[in-house]
Amino acid sequence: MASKLWEKNVTVNTDVETYTVGRDREMDMYLARFDVLGSLAHITMLQSVELLTKEELDILTAELRDIYAIIEKGDFAIEPDVEDVHSQVELMLTRRLGDTGKKIHSGRSRNDQVLVDLKLFTRERIEDITRAVASLFNTLIDQSERYKNVLMPGYTHLQVAMPSSFGLWFGAYAESLIDDLTVLSAAYKVANRNPLGSAAGYGSSFPLDRSMTTRLLGFESMNYNVVYAQMGRGKTERIVAQALGSIAATVGKLAYDACLFNSQNFGFIKLPDQYTTGSSIMPHKKNPDVFELTRAKCNKLQALPYEITLITTNLPSGYFRDLQLVKENFLPAFDNLADILSMVTRMVSEIKVNTEILDDPRYDLMFSVEEVNRLVVAGMPFRDAYKKVGLDIENGDFTARKAVDHTHEGSIGNLCNDALRALFDKTVDSFDFTTYHAAVDSLLGR
Amino acid sequence: MASKLWEKNVTVNTDVETYTVGRDREMDMYLARFDVLGSLAHITMLQSVELLTKEELDILTAELRDIYAIIEKGDFAIEPDVEDVHSQVELMLTRRLGDTGKKIHSGRSRNDQVLVDLKLFTRERIEDITRAVASLFNTLIDQSERYKNVLMPGYTHLQVAMPSSFGLWFGAYAESLIDDLTVLSAAYKVANRNPLGSAAGYGSSFPLDRSMTTRLLGFESMNYNVVYAQMGRGKTERIVAQALGSIAATVGKLAYDACLFNSQNFGFIKLPDQYTTGSSIMPHKKNPDVFELTRAKCNKLQALPYEITLITTNLPSGYFRDLQLVKENFLPAFDNLADILSMVTRMVSEIKVNTEILDDPRYDLMFSVEEVNRLVVAGMPFRDAYKKVGLDIENGDFTARKAVDHTHEGSIGNLCNDALRALFDKTVDSFDFTTYHAAVDSLLGR
Amino acid sequence: MASKLWEKNVTVNTDVETYTVGRDREMDMYLARFDVLGSLAHITMLQSVELLTKEELDILTAELRDIYAIIEKGDFAIEPDVEDVHSQVELMLTRRLGDTGKKIHSGRSRNDQVLVDLKLFTRERIEDITRAVASLFNTLIDQSERYKNVLMPGYTHLQVAMPSSFGLWFGAYAESLIDDLTVLSAAYKVANRNPLGSAAGYGSSFPLDRSMTTRLLGFESMNYNVVYAQMGRGKTERIVAQALGSIAATVGKLAYDACLFNSQNFGFIKLPDQYTTGSSIMPHKKNPDVFELTRAKCNKLQALPYEITLITTNLPSGYFRDLQLVKENFLPAFDNLADILSMVTRMVSEIKVNTEILDDPRYDLMFSVEEVNRLVVAGMPFRDAYKKVGLDIENGDFTARKAVDHTHEGSIGNLCNDALRALFDKTVDSFDFTTYHAAVDSLLGR
Amino acid sequence: MASKLWEKNVTVNTDVETYTVGRDREMDMYLARFDVLGSLAHITMLQSVELLTKEELDILTAELRDIYAIIEKGDFAIEPDVEDVHSQVELMLTRRLGDTGKKIHSGRSRNDQVLVDLKLFTRERIEDITRAVASLFNTLIDQSERYKNVLMPGYTHLQVAMPSSFGLWFGAYAESLIDDLTVLSAAYKVANRNPLGSAAGYGSSFPLDRSMTTRLLGFESMNYNVVYAQMGRGKTERIVAQALGSIAATVGKLAYDACLFNSQNFGFIKLPDQYTTGSSIMPHKKNPDVFELTRAKCNKLQALPYEITLITTNLPSGYFRDLQLVKENFLPAFDNLADILSMVTRMVSEIKVNTEILDDPRYDLMFSVEEVNRLVVAGMPFRDAYKKVGLDIENGDFTARKAVDHTHEGSIGNLCNDALRALFDKTVDSFDFTTYHAAVDSLLGR
Repeated sequence: MASKLWEKNVTVNTDVETYTVGRDREMDMYLARFDVLGSLAHITMLQSVELLTKEELDILTAELRDIYAIIEKGDFAIEPDVEDVHSQVELMLTRRLGDTGKKIHSGRSRNDQVLVDLKLFTRERIEDITRAVASLFNTLIDQSERYKNVLMPGYTHLQVAMPSSFGLWFGAYAESLIDDLTVLSAAYKVANRNPLGSAAGYGSSFPLDRSMTTRLLGFESMNYNVVYAQMGRGKTERIVAQALGSIAATVGKLAYDACLFNSQNFGFIKLPDQYTTGSSIMPHKKNPDVFELTRAKCNKLQALPYEITLITTNLPSGYFRDLQLVKENFLPAFDNLADILSMVTRMVSEIKVNTEILDDPRYDLMFSVEEVNRLVVAGMPFRDAYKKVGLDIENGDFTARKAVDHTHEGSIGNLCNDALRALFDKTVDSFDFTTYHAAVDSLLGR
Repeated sequence: MASKLWEKNVTVNTDVETYTVGRDREMDMYLARFDVLGSLAHITMLQSVELLTKEELDILTAELRDIYAIIEKGDFAIEPDVEDVHSQVELMLTRRLGDTGKKIHSGRSRNDQVLVDLKLFTRERIEDITRAVASLFNTLIDQSERYKNVLMPGYTHLQVAMPSSFGLWFGAYAESLIDDLTVLSAAYKVANRNPLGSAAGYGSSFPLDRSMTTRLLGFESMNYNVVYAQMGRGKTERIVAQALGSIAATVGKLAYDACLFNSQNFGFIKLPDQYTTGSSIMPHKKNPDVFELTRAKCNKLQALPYEITLITTNLPSGYFRDLQLVKENFLPAFDNLADILSMVTRMVSEIKVNTEILDDPRYDLMFSVEEVNRLVVAGMPFRDAYKKVGLDIENGDFTARKAVDHTHEGSIGNLCNDALRALFDKTVDSFDFTTYHAAVDSLLGR
Repeated sequence: MASKLWEKNVTVNTDVETYTVGRDREMDMYLARFDVLGSLAHITMLQSVELLTKEELDILTAELRDIYAIIEKGDFAIEPDVEDVHSQVELMLTRRLGDTGKKIHSGRSRNDQVLVDLKLFTRERIEDITRAVASLFNTLIDQSERYKNVLMPGYTHLQVAMPSSFGLWFGAYAESLIDDLTVLSAAYKVANRNPLGSAAGYGSSFPLDRSMTTRLLGFESMNYNVVYAQMGRGKTERIVAQALGSIAATVGKLAYDACLFNSQNFGFIKLPDQYTTGSSIMPHKKNPDVFELTRAKCNKLQALPYEITLITTNLPSGYFRDLQLVKENFLPAFDNLADILSMVTRMVSEIKVNTEILDDPRYDLMFSVEEVNRLVVAGMPFRDAYKKVGLDIENGDFTARKAVDHTHEGSIGNLCNDALRALFDKTVDSFDFTTYHAAVDSLLGR
Repeated sequence: MASKLWEKNVTVNTDVETYTVGRDREMDMYLARFDVLGSLAHITMLQSVELLTKEELDILTAELRDIYAIIEKGDFAIEPDVEDVHSQVELMLTRRLGDTGKKIHSGRSRNDQVLVDLKLFTRERIEDITRAVASLFNTLIDQSERYKNVLMPGYTHLQVAMPSSFGLWFGAYAESLIDDLTVLSAAYKVANRNPLGSAAGYGSSFPLDRSMTTRLLGFESMNYNVVYAQMGRGKTERIVAQALGSIAATVGKLAYDACLFNSQNFGFIKLPDQYTTGSSIMPHKKNPDVFELTRAKCNKLQALPYEITLITTNLPSGYFRDLQLVKENFLPAFDNLADILSMVTRMVSEIKVNTEILDDPRYDLMFSVEEVNRLVVAGMPFRDAYKKVGLDIENGDFTARKAVDHTHEGSIGNLCNDALRALFDKTVDSFDFTTYHAAVDSLLGR
């Protein structure tokens, strides 16, 4: 029972099996729901090309939908001596349906089965990430609006440079997320193509209807060439991981700023006490551990595409077992990023900003550029104005007028947050999640 | 003369200057044309908000167009004691126009100047790469069509597995390029936003019209938030480098296959003699050095995003001089990839395939799956068919029928190359290069 | 009870705690034994500087040794509401000893506690890896000796080039491990320095005797400067991970060769059936999954130093919570590599080589260089000999004499495996594991 | 003339040649001196095994020494149509000596020739780096001693934590360099083994005496196994690059601290005016560009081992042209790091520290731990002392006593800089550069 499909007369050594299976069964749990979806589409297609009867299709469909519901309830498990999720699902079917259960295997290989599982998984998890990014985006824009009139120093070279504002600071990270979603949207497109029917990477002599499974699963298009369908494994993951890493880079930078600005040497922001930790021997500390770990988690996530590249580089075409290992850090990456986004959204919404920063005279000089420009607008040539203000500073004659009148697009007085909202919405719309939802609901009879 | 703009009373140490300028003047030569374009848009806008007179604009425009032509002719150089391209252009203007030449500096910082140069450069070079990818794509599809009836072994685990064809093999790499262009298209979108007007990353008190420069330079939109406009530096390069790296990964894999298939142990393809090298002590060798170097160049290119990530990770917001170093490998990367694509296109077009591969009996067993499927279609249950063929093989009773009848989408008999051509064209269309060309021509009065 | 040491009046938010603790308690289980060892040395020192009485020391020593034994038996666990291993050990002590239990905390911070735990852990695991490398080395040398007379083709550019032998092939990987151990030995030196007493990275006002704990724990020296002791975190892990990665690179390359040579297109080696897997639809396949996963695991391991670099780059000096995340992939890396080494040792010992390779005429030409050299030794100028053999080949007049007479050091006929054994032993001796074993035994009263 | 050694009847396409040669001739200039050294040892050995006459040896030796002198004077160049440094040297010899010049090629391949060149180059450049590290080490220790009594805040989580000192801060980086040299010393050992005689990676039928060339070139040992000698290419570079990267990581972190501490928000250190730059629109800025570029250069250098890993991973054994590309960033890396070290040494020696930091009351609380410890030493249980100080702080009753009395090894009052000097010297001694200098001098007849 539950023996390997490919087993012949020789039993594989147990240690070898432990070594090769590794954490694969744990990983396959991420794919269970999607494996069932792929099978639902596959059998519908098999019946359409008369490799299943209508009765067989109906019975198999009912059972697969039942298994899907079991997975959704969290009651699904891969049994100890079952190799992977595909075998587990087939085992459950044959237990209930006998030989009919085995028929879902026709015209399919485990290769294209895991390929389609990965694509379906990735597609759904990209949607989750997109929604989490939207929450953070909205929170950042809200904070940008709330604090649009609170000035803060703007730095270049970590030197006090020019007036900035919390409106600008929060808004900048919001806008950064738009570009990240643009990248993620391309990754989604790459993931949203149907590899099912490529079998072991060289197609099949069965008269499969791949256009039909493409439609049934709500894919935007198919991976046409069957050799490419297989070649897309590892590659899709790398492209998606780079897109996740782009979001992580934005959030990690925000976390870095937050750690810096929370330092006593800046004092620009305050985190609520219940979100900080203390020290076993330093009674006064309030450490921004959440942001530090966020930064580290984001950097770790940015290492993922490199790991995938290292595993997949210099492999010739065709399937290799190496690809299994890509799953280990790729599949959990979505949960990790979702956790990060959720926590950072909360932290950002709770950050208190220091409205009195500019009382500290160390920031006075950043108004010097304003003064230069004021003189220029009043008619003095730029070089002269620049020289005059420079000399005033050296002679201690410079007095900062702590008000700014920036009016152009994207500046302190004109944040363009509405334009950012519009651009964000347009970017999210480019994903088109509705098509696949309709298809999945239909497969599940919902 | 030609002194640094920001120099005060103290002269910067010469060694320090050599150390900090590094290869920057060499790198700036990549940006010269684009610096002029940015200035043309900037002054047109300055006049519209009355910071320049109409006369000043006309004079400056004429001179800048003249400098542009000089650069195009290859006659432009950054003089030895001039720090960067921005200073060189300003110097040329002031030599000709005196104080009027200095006026292009109003409402602008070197920060947003280099930002816009990088975006304009990247946009144009992405177009070049896209066209080079199109050539390779077309050549691959042509070869796929030419050899669609030549079977070859398909491998999994580098084990002879199932029948494949050169039609599939060439076509797979063509399709891979489509996904790569999808990623590049997102990178293009990110690059195609206007940072001009962000000054040193905190905007300006001048009444700049950033919408106008966005339009004049043909950008799809602007980087609204000025803090984000600055934050996009390094990030844009990373995103673009990842997209270039994706193309490189495809080409590197093709090169790996070519090296393998050119080995005497495969003998699937042959490279023309004038494209191979020999050995100083082995008179019979014909080495595929071009493909080996292509593979190495592609792997090197894939290291670029990691380098950029390492340089930019854990920097807080605001400009840092660190970003200068990103240019050193980013700017030449386009030339490198263009060279690779051009050489590989030529090699692919010249590859001769071995039409007699299957005469070698070592490949007979790959027809076993065909046999199993034939029995299944004829009515035998899959398990029984699988067992029968396995036993035939063990007993030496298996005879390969070396013909395949694969008909489904993307398989040997139905490559779907037309669908790939259509998808490729659609992907290229998504870039929309025409808008920016029109804008640039208009700026140049062409 | 079991509350955080540093907790004041405000309770840390539960979600924040979950987020920040992450997998840290799981990771800390790797460190438990070493935490007890560090404490044993610390209290012995505390008593010597009169911060503990002799009686307190005796009681605490007995209890800590008891806890050590519990950990060794596998009966130790970190309780659900206890933050980390340090708190768990202290909790167990205070449960048994009341306030005396708390006294182990004097003059120490969790920072230097985890630092010393990591160093002790790393030191011991490096020893394990060294022993596993020794097994593989010996197996490779054994196979090299066994097959020293079996010729095989040597490739350059994956082109058949010159005669090689299985003696050379196995021996090459053995020698590669020597260089890897040289690198590991340096990493061991870096790890084998005592950070205890650096407290939170700035030392302590207690009159600690750091030389004493250095001696008690068997460290080669101490991390003197307390700021550097802290700075070594992350850095030590990176250096060690690079050394582990070097071993992985050697083993990964061996695995690549094995996959290639196991292909039907080479047929140089055979893996025992129980170590290969088949295919669900291809009855004749015998796939080298073990070597493929080995290769992938080795590549994944080589990504670890990059991950550590990304997490730690651009952090200023002083402790950051980011460092916690380094543990997640660093601590299990030793187990992973040990598994790989053990499996590969076994596979190498079971590999069967094909002694009939050279019967295949496709390899004849590799004897051409031999022929050239034979003519040279017989007096013909090299150029003439080279030309003559080249022409013979072109005219089909070349006959391979399939014997080689290579006699110089490291060549087919003179493998120098004894010299390799000697160099290996000398490299292993450079680690000096005995010193620390004696120290640890003494601390444990064994 | 000057035609490729391996050229047969077909001319290699010019574009292919441009593409494959790439920057190789430029790179080979780094290797010229070492190529001559390798040849000097090779011919001495050839004569000892009677493949050259004594007269031929004398003539060739004289000419090669002459070419060495030409290279030293900077008068050597690779001529336009000459492929590489090996061919150029041979060409110069044959121009002068006719056929005798060609005899240096016996028993050698370009493969082991470039291998030995790389090893000799690396060995010498590691010595240069070691000396540059020694300068920086000494400067750091000097500054540590000079400022050992100047306190500064010590941070954890970038929160003001405990008293530290500039003595500790400078000293920490000095000690970090010791661990880096330990890693570099292992890399040196790996590089200091002789690959000459491995020919194309499979040895030679000539009766070479590889022990002799090992001795003549002053190598510590040889790469025995000829297959491994070839396999060491790429691997040696990766190991050395990791060691250079470790130094870079230390220097990059120092640079990060310097940028932070130079910010107005810290004001801990001051860089001399001539080492900073200003801003085109902000007249008061003094930017630490040198340290920013140092940081970026160090991060870039840390990307090098990843690039090498990507190029070399998943290549089977045997030479591939891919390895040529490793040279492009590896060879110049030594110059880059030497420049960095030289500049940072100078900057560190010029840094002025702020002796008045602690006048700022924001740092008062860092003395709280001192107060807790003082109470403990006076007899109060730690928990009570900790609680009392915590409450004092909350009630505003805490007064900082701004003096510390840290006496243990490595703490503020006991920096152990002498121990660091001793450890540094011991580490440098482990390299043993004298052996190879004597050998090289002897080869050159000096």
